[in-house]
Amino acid sequence: MAILANRVAILGLGLIGGSWALGLKRAGAVSEIVAWGRDQTRLDKAVEMGIVDSASTDMAVAVAAADVIVIATPLGTMASVFDQLVPVLPGDAVVTDVGSAKMHVIELARLRLGKKFPRFVPGHPVAGAEHSGFEAASEGLFEKRRVVLTPVSETDAAALQLIEALWQRCGASPVRMDAQRHDDVLALTSHLPHAVAYLLVDLLAQQGGDDAREFAAGGFYDITRIASSSPEMWRDIFIDNKDSMVRLLDQYISGLNDFKQAISDGDNDHLMQVMQRAKSTRDGLI
Amino acid sequence: MAILANRVAILGLGLIGGSWALGLKRAGAVSEIVAWGRDQTRLDKAVEMGIVDSASTDMAVAVAAADVIVIATPLGTMASVFDQLVPVLPGDAVVTDVGSAKMHVIELARLRLGKKFPRFVPGHPVAGAEHSGFEAASEGLFEKRRVVLTPVSETDAAALQLIEALWQRCGASPVRMDAQRHDDVLALTSHLPHAVAYLLVDLLAQQGGDDAREFAAGGFYDITRIASSSPEMWRDIFIDNKDSMVRLLDQYISGLNDFKQAISDGDNDHLMQVMQRAKSTRDGLI
Repeated sequence: MAILANRVAILGLGLIGGSWALGLKRAGAVSEIVAWGRDQTRLDKAVEMGIVDSASTDMAVAVAAADVIVIATPLGTMASVFDQLVPVLPGDAVVTDVGSAKMHVIELARLRLGKKFPRFVPGHPVAGAEHSGFEAASEGLFEKRRVVLTPVSETDAAALQLIEALWQRCGASPVRMDAQRHDDVLALTSHLPHAVAYLLVDLLAQQGGDDAREFAAGGFYDITRIASSSPEMWRDIFIDNKDSMVRLLDQYISGLNDFKQAISDGDNDHLMQVMQRAKSTRDGLI
Repeated sequence: MAILANRVAILGLGLIGGSWALGLKRAGAVSEIVAWGRDQTRLDKAVEMGIVDSASTDMAVAVAAADVIVIATPLGTMASVFDQLVPVLPGDAVVTDVGSAKMHVIELARLRLGKKFPRFVPGHPVAGAEHSGFEAASEGLFEKRRVVLTPVSETDAAALQLIEALWQRCGASPVRMDAQRHDDVLALTSHLPHAVAYLLVDLLAQQGGDDAREFAAGGFYDITRIASSSPEMWRDIFIDNKDSMVRLLDQYISGLNDFKQAISDGDNDHLMQVMQRAKSTRDGLI
């Protein structure tokens, strides 16, 4: 199949950046992949492992002559990465990202990229994984996974199509979505559940004794698995998706308060209404 | 091994009652098992399936000459079951139950059983299962499972030891625990997580569109599995364990409010403190 881009620069080589590099290579979709990162030792290791062709801690070197630049650093570093990128950004390069929240990144890109903003394609591969770091990267990570692209009115159609084509060559299914809707839907289905799980375990940490921890080995263990996720990553996501999260947390807390009041009042009807609606919705998920 | 009881009556033949009957039979721990229930057709089926030796919808018939009586009906029916049982209760019978919350049942038993209250052994086999009904019963359900017994100061030592021995013969590990502590620990590790999961899915039911439901197929699906549990059963548990639930929900809601405020204020320190404490606690669970 055709080469879609000559030179791809991946800024931040973790699980996602590393897996995209491996996927693009396997597909023969690009000629050369360069990584940029802060830690030369880590970058050397990634080159040794064959994840990328070359690597540099110098942004100007890493992105020189790049056709596509993928920002795959943590959300909290985006502003600083844009600051370093903008002065050395090749004129025609398409820039994309992989962040879990989109509205804030889009605003950032609009401000920092200025006239080049139309070449920015906001993206989010929905591929959760237990592990992190490029050592856990795999060429098949995105196979049959949904990748949400959230173009805005200014976004260049050709840039969008190129990023879609690259994802497709990695086996992923790119879909287009409104950025605000993306942030709302992900807040509801992913970000809020993480907050809820962290807080559940934190209550155990503060209230439970050794006996409580023994009882936490069963169902509690299963539903709080996601509370073992990286606090740094989730702090960035919560802060980046602040508006959706605050709105949803308000609604969730209000629902919990009503439920608590119903327990306190012995209001069986309210309890049954909530639980039956929830059970039927949950049973209906694929 | 020795026969521990001649005649055992099981009131309410669901998954738990049925599995205890099968376990006791396999162990040769009792001579005869009789079931009591409301539905003659269901009882006939259980006898046909060999789960119990005989069955009756007449409480007097079912408990006549019983050495041990197991109340395995839903928590919400306990008061009515005690009302029917007390007039026909054999003088020396040991009575036990399998309810998921203990303080309320103990108060009920104390009021209804009067002078016979010392022969009541409050119990809770901690054996969650996806299915319900005696058709799903299995003789090995309680193997290596914890069974919490919550005797009070009045509880007869011999009655307690008999119930412990019966559970051991089914392969279970009986442990003794203070009833209030049981209710607090189970509220924290089981009841609150169920409420939290029901409310999460209910938010999806009310807020999400079709796109949100598609995204709910991943992590959301896993952590809300318990929201497919029986609403009737959980209504009874929440109401029975009202005091612990209301107290814990207050604390949980307060924690969520603080977390929301920290997201809103960009208070990274608070977010990290909560999530790191939670992650380290979760990673420390077996």
